[in-house]
Amino acid sequence: MADTLKDLEGAQQDTRVPLGEILAAVRFNGDGLIPAIAQQHDSGEVLMMAWMNREALEETLTTGRVCYWSRSRGKLWRKGESSGQQQHLRTASLDCDGDTLLLQVEQTGPACHTGRRSCFYIALEGNAARIVSEPLIDPDILYHRPSGGA
Amino acid sequence: MADTLKDLEGAQQDTRVPLGEILAAVRFNGDGLIPAIAQQHDSGEVLMMAWMNREALEETLTTGRVCYWSRSRGKLWRKGESSGQQQHLRTASLDCDGDTLLLQVEQTGPACHTGRRSCFYIALEGNAARIVSEPLIDPDILYHRPSGGA
Repeated sequence: MADTLKDLEGAQQDTRVPLGEILAAVRFNGDGLIPAIAQQHDSGEVLMMAWMNREALEETLTTGRVCYWSRSRGKLWRKGESSGQQQHLRTASLDCDGDTLLLQVEQTGPACHTGRRSCFYIALEGNAARIVSEPLIDPDILYHRPSGGA
Repeated sequence: MADTLKDLEGAQQDTRVPLGEILAAVRFNGDGLIPAIAQQHDSGEVLMMAWMNREALEETLTTGRVCYWSRSRGKLWRKGESSGQQQHLRTASLDCDGDTLLLQVEQTGPACHTGRRSCFYIALEGNAARIVSEPLIDPDILYHRPSGGA
């Protein structure tokens, strides 16, 4: 772990350090990515988890509009650019060992590509998995696809 | 994505499928791991993110006591086995594409090895990072180390 983070482990509340020192201590994985958890800032609902590279993180902090790295598309993914369902950043936090981000966001409409508010809708209960929510909106409408299309 | 999960995208609330089908569709990464977000079930506070392999996930679902895979130690990590600060599972959920878990837990005391309730205590704000919480307990006490020891 970077010494910067180790040095902060015992730090008192409201201790401040220059942002650049922390950004330099962020531990991206071998692919240059860090997981980012998005949580609705007021309800506390965990909406999704996606990945950021350094550019996505810096853009998010600068613009206040959440930008991830799409591993499937291999490019920056400004959340909502296809669906219109943007995420606006309230607070970003780094964890103790610098390898995970928590984003408090204001999510417009559904966060999930299925049209559900949250991506975490498959509850593992006893001997069964149960779907705990329904789409708020048909994803074909969300992504402007012909009805019934792929 | 496994067809099982694709087939559930439009499923109505309370649709049930056998747990085994979902567990077979979980997408572990190249190292056989999946990220698991731990959230305090009642307050909504996101406490930490750690990793599970299949064995850790199955043990957690069976025993109700959260078990991760420690990447640094290369072994199963029953949360609280050193610190006494256990996590008891309320609900586990899988996300839409099967590559992230959300655990609703009852966390005893601090979740973080620094003695803080949550691992996400470094807020990235404007030009500075700010420590937003203090240890609830000295980690030397938590881990029964000689005071001032490493």
